[in-house]
Amino acid sequence: MKKRLFTPGPTPVPESVMLRMAEPIIHHRHPEFSELFTRVCENLQYVFQTAHEVLTLTSSGTGAMEAVVCNVHSPGETAVYVNGGKFGERWGEILRAYGVNAVEVRVEWGDSVLPGQIQSALEQHPNARAVYLTHSETSTGAATDVKEIAKVVRERKDVLTIVDGITAVGALELRMDEWGIDCVVTGSQKGLMIPPGLAFVAVSPRAWESINSSRCPRYYFDLRAARKALGSNDTPWTPAISLLTGLDAALAMICREGIEQVWARHARLATALRSATKALGLQILAKEPSNALTAIRIPESIDSKKFSTFLKKTYGITAAGGQGALAGKIIRISHLGYYDELDMIAVISAIEMALTGCGFAFERGAGIRAAQESFLRHSP
Amino acid sequence: MKKRLFTPGPTPVPESVMLRMAEPIIHHRHPEFSELFTRVCENLQYVFQTAHEVLTLTSSGTGAMEAVVCNVHSPGETAVYVNGGKFGERWGEILRAYGVNAVEVRVEWGDSVLPGQIQSALEQHPNARAVYLTHSETSTGAATDVKEIAKVVRERKDVLTIVDGITAVGALELRMDEWGIDCVVTGSQKGLMIPPGLAFVAVSPRAWESINSSRCPRYYFDLRAARKALGSNDTPWTPAISLLTGLDAALAMICREGIEQVWARHARLATALRSATKALGLQILAKEPSNALTAIRIPESIDSKKFSTFLKKTYGITAAGGQGALAGKIIRISHLGYYDELDMIAVISAIEMALTGCGFAFERGAGIRAAQESFLRHSP
Repeated sequence: MKKRLFTPGPTPVPESVMLRMAEPIIHHRHPEFSELFTRVCENLQYVFQTAHEVLTLTSSGTGAMEAVVCNVHSPGETAVYVNGGKFGERWGEILRAYGVNAVEVRVEWGDSVLPGQIQSALEQHPNARAVYLTHSETSTGAATDVKEIAKVVRERKDVLTIVDGITAVGALELRMDEWGIDCVVTGSQKGLMIPPGLAFVAVSPRAWESINSSRCPRYYFDLRAARKALGSNDTPWTPAISLLTGLDAALAMICREGIEQVWARHARLATALRSATKALGLQILAKEPSNALTAIRIPESIDSKKFSTFLKKTYGITAAGGQGALAGKIIRISHLGYYDELDMIAVISAIEMALTGCGFAFERGAGIRAAQESFLRHSP
Repeated sequence: MKKRLFTPGPTPVPESVMLRMAEPIIHHRHPEFSELFTRVCENLQYVFQTAHEVLTLTSSGTGAMEAVVCNVHSPGETAVYVNGGKFGERWGEILRAYGVNAVEVRVEWGDSVLPGQIQSALEQHPNARAVYLTHSETSTGAATDVKEIAKVVRERKDVLTIVDGITAVGALELRMDEWGIDCVVTGSQKGLMIPPGLAFVAVSPRAWESINSSRCPRYYFDLRAARKALGSNDTPWTPAISLLTGLDAALAMICREGIEQVWARHARLATALRSATKALGLQILAKEPSNALTAIRIPESIDSKKFSTFLKKTYGITAAGGQGALAGKIIRISHLGYYDELDMIAVISAIEMALTGCGFAFERGAGIRAAQESFLRHSP
């Protein structure tokens, strides 16, 4: 059976990228690597829309989140973070692990934080040094308006805006410099279309000031070491070389398409899947849904396990279920990275057949029709 | 030109492993991954010769070194480490980054620490909680007798023996449990024959006692989280999935050959290269040379840059130079991982031709003859 991956990380790896990674390995302290790494770093700056350094770490996205926390803070400082899902919650866990006084702004999982909520939190905690956001909350499929929130944060001179862009970079519009964001983090197995194992942190000059005075212990994730090595087109420790060669190929694809066109494609696929979902009589969990993935509520009349098994066993589709309190209640379909219109048609069709298989009543074909109409209305 | 990699990490990746990694990516929270990961962990236990947990991290070997330090210690504790090269020195840097009082046992770079030196250090610092060793010092090609040193350390009930096995695991005889070692660390791009990006920490029950009471801040490298996830055949954060599929293939090769046969092959290749080196009138840096790599002193009459360039440009051979104070003074030739007898013949022949090209006087063919004699004497 043909296998189709619709999880919001890992995401499908383009065939050309897989072949590139199968080439014999090169050494990371030799000129051919420097050339490749220089090109990769420049293209990452384009994807992040920043003129500042984008540092490469060999770790998962969580490692890059920790790298930000242990580099910008000293123990005892205060920071505000938004908990609107599992990954927002993680900011709080990491901050507390480093002795930072972590002030939680809690939003219902599936909702998105409003700029006014951040405004209030900063008024109540005037000593806060940073605000931690999740651009696209992978656990709920909700998007955060980081542009507007960054504006609110920027009114305070000494507060950093830090964005988990793990399922957002390369999918949702993000203009780091123009929007005044200080740190953006992402992982490789998301919009960048390569396997997991690399993570990235983009850092503003304001953030470097904090990093240079931080008193948290760190070594492997010391961003000062990464910056120093970057000066000679290198990394301080042996990087995941084969993933970097794959990334070079994947970034070339993104650059050829154009980052704004990549964002537009994600919007087009997301819009169609959302239309289809509604046409099938299903509900979307997020109020402000992300263009990276769609979390669909599973109707109470349906056995969620049976539904997932049908998708997997009958049509080879791997999707993601819910995490924590959302387990068994949602299915998350990714349109993050290497997807096109007909991939969406395929997954919508499989969903229709699985719904039928689970005895759910709806007008067969309504989802596909809605998606087609959406595509025709928003053709590039 | 055909390219040949003779660096002690990254090491050549077998063709079958490269092809395996080029397969479509699978999701890490699904049964097919659990199956693979279970098999990988069991085979790692065999390679480390341990019945205890071997934890998988997505990082370089340095990340795994830090994971040990920040998990077994609390700030203010004392630990002894051996500085006999760049990687021994790194133990000291990491220990100090976490506020550990790091007592250095300094040996000349190229020499190996003696059990008596560790004995003295422990007598002088009876409050030391751990001894940090480097089994095969990659910067000098020197091997440490960890078996004898572990015996000395074990005489003290509360002192842990911690071994950097980064260029040793899968190359030098290592019997973690039998020798009473508490933590062994390695990286993926060495004896395990896959690209960089994964690292491993094997942990004894004694070490877990320290880990459970440590007060160092940690999150991504928290070994308690890795152990908990291992209980359900999983990792706490998204692992480098494609590297794990490659590792599965590479470990199958090691298991087919047998770990003792793998150690014997490394000994055979190292012995032949050392014979050849001496026959050419060259000197080996290390007094107790490692079977993973050979660091050869470049004669003073030779321009080291010209020598390396000849190897690279004329014969496509990438070898490693010296680091730090050894820059320009040595060349390091790896026989770590996916190498056989004729690979050694190839590199020795290239060295002979490069020596001639650099005007060095020696009996042409003497190196090859010595290697052949060594192989014939030690045939498996």
